[in-house]
Amino acid sequence: MATTAPVPNPEADPRVKAVFDDIRTTRKTAFINNLWHALAFSPDLLASTWAEVKALMATPSHLDPLTKEMIYIAVSVANACSYCVHSHTAAARAKGMTDAQHAELLAIIALAARTNHLANGLQVPVDPAFDAAAVRGEA
Amino acid sequence: MATTAPVPNPEADPRVKAVFDDIRTTRKTAFINNLWHALAFSPDLLASTWAEVKALMATPSHLDPLTKEMIYIAVSVANACSYCVHSHTAAARAKGMTDAQHAELLAIIALAARTNHLANGLQVPVDPAFDAAAVRGEA
Amino acid sequence: MATTAPVPNPEADPRVKAVFDDIRTTRKTAFINNLWHALAFSPDLLASTWAEVKALMATPSHLDPLTKEMIYIAVSVANACSYCVHSHTAAARAKGMTDAQHAELLAIIALAARTNHLANGLQVPVDPAFDAAAVRGEA
Amino acid sequence: MATTAPVPNPEADPRVKAVFDDIRTTRKTAFINNLWHALAFSPDLLASTWAEVKALMATPSHLDPLTKEMIYIAVSVANACSYCVHSHTAAARAKGMTDAQHAELLAIIALAARTNHLANGLQVPVDPAFDAAAVRGEA
Amino acid sequence: MATTAPVPNPEADPRVKAVFDDIRTTRKTAFINNLWHALAFSPDLLASTWAEVKALMATPSHLDPLTKEMIYIAVSVANACSYCVHSHTAAARAKGMTDAQHAELLAIIALAARTNHLANGLQVPVDPAFDAAAVRGEA
Amino acid sequence: MATTAPVPNPEADPRVKAVFDDIRTTRKTAFINNLWHALAFSPDLLASTWAEVKALMATPSHLDPLTKEMIYIAVSVANACSYCVHSHTAAARAKGMTDAQHAELLAIIALAARTNHLANGLQVPVDPAFDAAAVRGEA
Repeated sequence: MATTAPVPNPEADPRVKAVFDDIRTTRKTAFINNLWHALAFSPDLLASTWAEVKALMATPSHLDPLTKEMIYIAVSVANACSYCVHSHTAAARAKGMTDAQHAELLAIIALAARTNHLANGLQVPVDPAFDAAAVRGEA
Repeated sequence: MATTAPVPNPEADPRVKAVFDDIRTTRKTAFINNLWHALAFSPDLLASTWAEVKALMATPSHLDPLTKEMIYIAVSVANACSYCVHSHTAAARAKGMTDAQHAELLAIIALAARTNHLANGLQVPVDPAFDAAAVRGEA
Repeated sequence: MATTAPVPNPEADPRVKAVFDDIRTTRKTAFINNLWHALAFSPDLLASTWAEVKALMATPSHLDPLTKEMIYIAVSVANACSYCVHSHTAAARAKGMTDAQHAELLAIIALAARTNHLANGLQVPVDPAFDAAAVRGEA
Repeated sequence: MATTAPVPNPEADPRVKAVFDDIRTTRKTAFINNLWHALAFSPDLLASTWAEVKALMATPSHLDPLTKEMIYIAVSVANACSYCVHSHTAAARAKGMTDAQHAELLAIIALAARTNHLANGLQVPVDPAFDAAAVRGEA
Repeated sequence: MATTAPVPNPEADPRVKAVFDDIRTTRKTAFINNLWHALAFSPDLLASTWAEVKALMATPSHLDPLTKEMIYIAVSVANACSYCVHSHTAAARAKGMTDAQHAELLAIIALAARTNHLANGLQVPVDPAFDAAAVRGEA
Repeated sequence: MATTAPVPNPEADPRVKAVFDDIRTTRKTAFINNLWHALAFSPDLLASTWAEVKALMATPSHLDPLTKEMIYIAVSVANACSYCVHSHTAAARAKGMTDAQHAELLAIIALAARTNHLANGLQVPVDPAFDAAAVRGEA
């Protein structure tokens, strides 16, 4: 069950086919996961979403691929996105995340949630030392 | 302004002093940021919070210190914790985060938020391939 | 599975029957969806919830019915309420939302999430020009 | 205070100047609000963010400009983004939102939050009738 | 700064005056806090909001007044509502919340956030034993 | 389906067995719910999580056991943690929560969500009277 009806033969639309082809080429797999199938109801939304995912997640950059997946998982957990937690945990494993790293990732996410709620509950004012213009900052 | 009244002389309590001393020793600084001052109203809560922060964030482990700070920032942004975003961005900079890495961190957090909301709006069912027991998974 | 046990014959309670009757009359359908069945375990909560839904969503007002459903969907996506995303997307379609409008709604929700996370990550101070007392404001 | 240091003379970078010029032209104003100034620390992030805001919010489409701003506000409130609530409320007013519409927008956001929390508290299963493939759906 | 302009003399409107009078009588104080002043821009929204706050928070019921305030604080922290955390912590103190209870409230909120994020990160399926129709359930 | 593969015989690890034994003893039941089974993939994370749950939720303190469960439910609903809402609602029922208390708990959670969104939408500034250092505060 989803909020859009499945598109019967999505690749009949050349814009959808172009994106799906690029996903398959970029990821070196024939597998197209459900998010892209669901987005096929709007080729524009499909194309703009994939363009940004490819640019940030499938292109060499200043952060290594596994770190990027772990950041993605952290946001997805905090936003309670069940689909994204599943898909990006699978992606992180495919990029080499070990059980020990997974456990530590979850522990840090949980710790951050804990102190986020403490700080929001205490309504602690931000230290001037944390201002980006200040010389040093520590937490 | 905060939801607890400031403790006038927190280190008069030996449990508070022990935690503050450990923070100073562990971080090699005399600076104690506001969160710890606010938590001093409950030495138990202060001690248990610091114990976990120290164990996860200030101890060598399976993830490098900067990666851990970036994960922490990601959760804090998604949970809208202004204090934690400030304090952990400062901490990440102190651990060497460059402007280019900071920009990429923010871009990935924003991308994850974008697809989190798309997936939650579409209510996409999770692909069986993402099951941890399955052989491969991709996102 | 739910957190309350189903009420065997909810309309045996005249307060529940009155609400269910009003739902059927207002919506011109015999269909009572699961949320109202679940709320029937507390006739008070059922009645106060329906009264507000009816007053805001089923009464002519300053916003047209489809706009109201799209606002409702936007909040429900951000709050990760699977049930409400499903029910209000169905309601929006019943009120005429096209696929093109649905795609654009999702795109704007995703864009807002993206800039929400950017602004919270950057901790940008609010421009004085946005003060409601100021003459003009732009974003 | 923000998490990035202000860029002293941002338009000295031609990529930043190009974006700022486009913002001024598109919006017919000399005013560049703080979010864009803060994003100037990364011309790439600035350019990609503005490109999407312009494409979705400043281009004629299937939804009228005021409806789009109200959807944006709804997401921003639910995500607790203080900056975005301020900036997009100002934008909505500039596009003609009346006090009566503003009050109704807030009332619907609050109602959605209320039923989001009820549905998540009750863990109500989704009605099969809400499946996008089903003929009719009501909420 | 707020998103609505302050109403110059709000009690000139008899509907606003009636609500403000009822707040003063119910709470036995001359103090009207900012939320009600801000809501005065829409007497309807003001009246419906106060009616529900009064019915649930200022009327004897199945939960004691302090427990109700602590539940309110818990939700407000998780939703990152700075205003509500401040106002309801003040209310809880006025109803007798001690420092030890406050510390424990924050500790439980933080613990719940921690396990919420763990469970969402692990995507643990719900045990059938937790079904409300089942005889026993434990967590 | 979960993001970690099930551990075939978790109690073969003496650290896991020690935690499971303590859960059974503390709760006076043979039932170990899914969260603990899932956490068994990391005995460290399992042990530290249980230690805190036991210390806060299964030890006499300044708040009664049912109040603590209701606070836990409130946070879990706001954080959209389906698993935790189910497990702690079951726990609250086991500790005596009546249907009337459950309905009132949900009503207060929903009311808090409603005013959280109103206050965040209005961006109401915090009253100085709510400062913890001030003599009195009311909401």
